[in-house]
Amino acid sequence: MTGHVVALSGGVGGAKLAHGLALALASASEDLTLIVNTGDDFEHLGLHIAPDLDSVVYALAGLSDPVRGWGRRDESWTFMKALAGLGGDTWFQLGDGDLAMHVQRSLRLAQGATLTQATAELCQALGIVTRVLPMSDDPVRTRVRTEEGWLDFQDYFVRLQCRPAVRGFTFAGAEGARAQPDVLAALQRPDLRAIIICPSNPFVSVEPILAVPGIRAAIERAAAPVIAVTPIIGGKAIKGPAAKMMTELGLEVTGAAVAARYVGLIDGFIVDQGDPIPDGLSGIRFFRTATLMSTTDDRLSLARAALAAADTFNTR
Amino acid sequence: MTGHVVALSGGVGGAKLAHGLALALASASEDLTLIVNTGDDFEHLGLHIAPDLDSVVYALAGLSDPVRGWGRRDESWTFMKALAGLGGDTWFQLGDGDLAMHVQRSLRLAQGATLTQATAELCQALGIVTRVLPMSDDPVRTRVRTEEGWLDFQDYFVRLQCRPAVRGFTFAGAEGARAQPDVLAALQRPDLRAIIICPSNPFVSVEPILAVPGIRAAIERAAAPVIAVTPIIGGKAIKGPAAKMMTELGLEVTGAAVAARYVGLIDGFIVDQGDPIPDGLSGIRFFRTATLMSTTDDRLSLARAALAAADTFNTR
Repeated sequence: MTGHVVALSGGVGGAKLAHGLALALASASEDLTLIVNTGDDFEHLGLHIAPDLDSVVYALAGLSDPVRGWGRRDESWTFMKALAGLGGDTWFQLGDGDLAMHVQRSLRLAQGATLTQATAELCQALGIVTRVLPMSDDPVRTRVRTEEGWLDFQDYFVRLQCRPAVRGFTFAGAEGARAQPDVLAALQRPDLRAIIICPSNPFVSVEPILAVPGIRAAIERAAAPVIAVTPIIGGKAIKGPAAKMMTELGLEVTGAAVAARYVGLIDGFIVDQGDPIPDGLSGIRFFRTATLMSTTDDRLSLARAALAAADTFNTR
Repeated sequence: MTGHVVALSGGVGGAKLAHGLALALASASEDLTLIVNTGDDFEHLGLHIAPDLDSVVYALAGLSDPVRGWGRRDESWTFMKALAGLGGDTWFQLGDGDLAMHVQRSLRLAQGATLTQATAELCQALGIVTRVLPMSDDPVRTRVRTEEGWLDFQDYFVRLQCRPAVRGFTFAGAEGARAQPDVLAALQRPDLRAIIICPSNPFVSVEPILAVPGIRAAIERAAAPVIAVTPIIGGKAIKGPAAKMMTELGLEVTGAAVAARYVGLIDGFIVDQGDPIPDGLSGIRFFRTATLMSTTDDRLSLARAALAAADTFNTR
């Protein structure tokens, strides 16, 4: 099977499958476009921080820290220690190597580059051939409605460590944001083989992407099957607050409940091999495979399973 | 002898004597005002870098690197390595800890703080009680006329490692810059005991300060004696391009030649104990003492010698 593949990704879990897809399509890496959530982006210490873009870039470049699960490997922390000594804001941890990404990106943005251009330059410098696109070059900022009121995403996520119970979400700026043009062009390609929704948090990683005008519609109209991979395994999220959020929103903590949010959008949904196949979700075909990605081989296997699931819809 | 002391300082050598003065006046640290050159400041990677302010602050805080002679002690370099991997500009070395200073200062400036305020906050966080003032809150940028044309100071100093022969200097923006108000107020104090010109490069550390409208006149009119300390010992500069510049400008490489630039401004000049007392510079009294500052004790001794030289003019 050939053809272009588009994947939607948030941070850590999504980035792992994005890496798997890049490996699976390595012989034709121009055949993969990654659309990355920027709803987590924020300005901090005068720098533009883009956590999900960075997670994807680090995963593709083999630079992710394997233990911490975020940031760069072989990291040092001298900057944070010095910043603390200067009375600076230290609630958001920035490694010394990681900081280079934020400084270089912020510099390019200040010089007038778009986030897309800055990202492409960083990817090129790191030898990444896969196309990594922010969902939009315009600012979209996820805000979390909690029992303590509205919170900026990183306030909720890092500063408060996801403690306040969530009630809902909004994506500030999404309404007026323009979808990154290559995102829409990729989704409209006639040779599109699959659209993969990576195992990312539906509320704060995938839905911000879908909130950018034109993207959801382009996915719905796309020629290719849309396959989502569960971020929930055995009633838990591997990383991040997805399970906690589902409980707080009164949802079952299952892949099926995630799939339900994508009714009308997706054609197939992959649950974990240890979980039951849900029944009765209109228009969604379920698949079952190993979805935990502990090793690079796991990433590749899951990517191949997602592509195989898509290909069951492809008649060519 | 009591009274207020004002010192003019550039980077490394000046910062050492500034530290010595702070130690000498430690029992009355509100009695010292340091006026620091900002002609070396520049925007780099989107950050406001202030090398001389940082050298002074690090010296006062005991954070200077004793081996390198610039930057912070216990430094790491992960940021620079990562930045190189991202294709960033690496000609200007920024340590991971040092970066905290630039990021925090740049953040405060972007938030509307003056350079004076940002510096005061950094000093306070580091427990520095001495008042450290930039010569101006307005940008003044030293440019170097060389045989290869005009160069920005850091281009000349760091990127080209002072290789091009110098022909002259200009301080862009000085004409319209406003002297930092507390600088002028300190120089006008009736209880002024001494104005010390630290052993800094006359061309690119001291003269940019004197180029800010009002500062030279305030020094000339000040009630206190003005004492300069030689940056030249035995025909050499301890650090930096002062000696090379003097040769290229057709000057003798001696303390006397430095003193000659300050005729009309200074009352006393301290040459090194190993150098001869110059004769025949109108209106300047010469002193001779050990001026090499290898240890903290050396800094303190030279500070005391400079204050003692000043006090020979004080009739009280």
